[in-house]
Amino acid sequence: MSAHTQPSDVTVLGLGPMGRALAGAFLGAGLRTTVWNRTPGRDGELAEQGAARAATAADAAAASPLTVVCVVDYDAADAVLRADAVTAALAGRTVVNLTADTPERARGTARWAKDHGVRYLDGAIMTPTTTIGTPDAVLIHSGPEELYEEHRPVLAALGGTHTHLGDEIGRAAAYDVALLDIFWTAMAGWAHAVALARAEGITARELAPFAQGIGAILPPLFAETAEDADGGTWSGEGNPLTSAVSSMSHVVEVSESHGIDAGVMRAAEGIARRTVGLGHGADGFVRIAEVLGRR
Amino acid sequence: MSAHTQPSDVTVLGLGPMGRALAGAFLGAGLRTTVWNRTPGRDGELAEQGAARAATAADAAAASPLTVVCVVDYDAADAVLRADAVTAALAGRTVVNLTADTPERARGTARWAKDHGVRYLDGAIMTPTTTIGTPDAVLIHSGPEELYEEHRPVLAALGGTHTHLGDEIGRAAAYDVALLDIFWTAMAGWAHAVALARAEGITARELAPFAQGIGAILPPLFAETAEDADGGTWSGEGNPLTSAVSSMSHVVEVSESHGIDAGVMRAAEGIARRTVGLGHGADGFVRIAEVLGRR
Repeated sequence: MSAHTQPSDVTVLGLGPMGRALAGAFLGAGLRTTVWNRTPGRDGELAEQGAARAATAADAAAASPLTVVCVVDYDAADAVLRADAVTAALAGRTVVNLTADTPERARGTARWAKDHGVRYLDGAIMTPTTTIGTPDAVLIHSGPEELYEEHRPVLAALGGTHTHLGDEIGRAAAYDVALLDIFWTAMAGWAHAVALARAEGITARELAPFAQGIGAILPPLFAETAEDADGGTWSGEGNPLTSAVSSMSHVVEVSESHGIDAGVMRAAEGIARRTVGLGHGADGFVRIAEVLGRR
Repeated sequence: MSAHTQPSDVTVLGLGPMGRALAGAFLGAGLRTTVWNRTPGRDGELAEQGAARAATAADAAAASPLTVVCVVDYDAADAVLRADAVTAALAGRTVVNLTADTPERARGTARWAKDHGVRYLDGAIMTPTTTIGTPDAVLIHSGPEELYEEHRPVLAALGGTHTHLGDEIGRAAAYDVALLDIFWTAMAGWAHAVALARAEGITARELAPFAQGIGAILPPLFAETAEDADGGTWSGEGNPLTSAVSSMSHVVEVSESHGIDAGVMRAAEGIARRTVGLGHGADGFVRIAEVLGRR
């Protein structure tokens, strides 16, 4: 089988929308790129752009010093990487796993890699497929810094901003999960607001310009309240937790008067009320972060 | 009592942080401004800037053709406005109620106003106290358009952007509640992410620059998915609901492994899974807006 595989600069395992974007960016940067996907038929366009198609994952792994993995989750990644032939092919080579999952799964894969002589970096992609290979891409990485530096020139082909967050292998996944927490919670708020607005005869398009205004005030608030959170200062001046609770209860009341599920806001309001009950009603909203983790 | 009160351009009832900001902006624009607060002692700085202090709410109402109300909620507003002497003083004059509450409460106050010959506009302030009187202020209004146009020159002293959303009196409150829904849900996501990051050894300050990046991608997504929601097209291409559910479950798993309450994300994930279960797994995330309102 190895007769099929020419030596290349980088291998991409997993050709979903993101994997294809990654391989396309490597090819676009002039790198010799080998591709493989469990389900065939995903590599046609990449082959036209010059990608080498490997017949097996082991062949793909054997073709390059660096293998980038991007599949649906670590169960899928393990199913590929931990097959004996693939593990054997990867020994002495580097895997950069850009699959999204939890920090614990990243740590587990790092243990497997160490046991099998595979050099291992973990990472996460924070921006949509369309940003890959452009200045808008944001990627985060963790694992041994010298290994990251060694492969940085090839990873740079993916475009945008790359940040090495530390040697602890779970760190990229920890950032990823925390950022997905913000993203999906906010999107749940937006979708809920669309439902609520509709019930009041307001279209999503009518709401959107004002929603964009709300979105625009979030980034500076994140920066400002991060200082509060780390400093333990919790300035609630002008916007105390008690006032947040009042607004939140209005959202619940209006939603439920229209038969709209308010479970997300009820849960958030519950935590905020618990924080007020603990005597922090005059503090700023992010004080709830302290209460969330109390067992 | 009326001997105490000189005729003025505008009266502000309620001198919490926002009421003081409103009165300060009117004074800053050179308008003769009368102020009153239930609890005394809040008007000292405003008096130094030239505000007339009314001894009673009825005196304050009698002093100006336009009374702006900004108190904690409509219970507090009713306690002031519906006192007989105040209602009598307001007859034939205009009230602009910038107090935040539900659309139903705004409608109830409009009925009271009609019954007592009070001209009534409802409104909401979408930006913090510090923006009042600056170009960054955002205010929304609803109620009879000609009444809004009549008082627009005075309201313009509050700065920023004013939008008249329609004659239906509850409309400003409906927008307000929908926008607060987005805001507080997103802030709950941010506070939760801070708790989660800390449990993984990441400070809020370290997370903030990446959180700001997430915040920056929300406004264009709101605009884009508003088109989907109104058009019923629900394009999930590149980011289907099934993939959101997978990310959401990672957030829950990591949170709970650290003893962090994941009630908000569990509620959001539940709605998303319900939407997938109804056969919409390939649709975009905002499809959940359709499911939220189903009884």
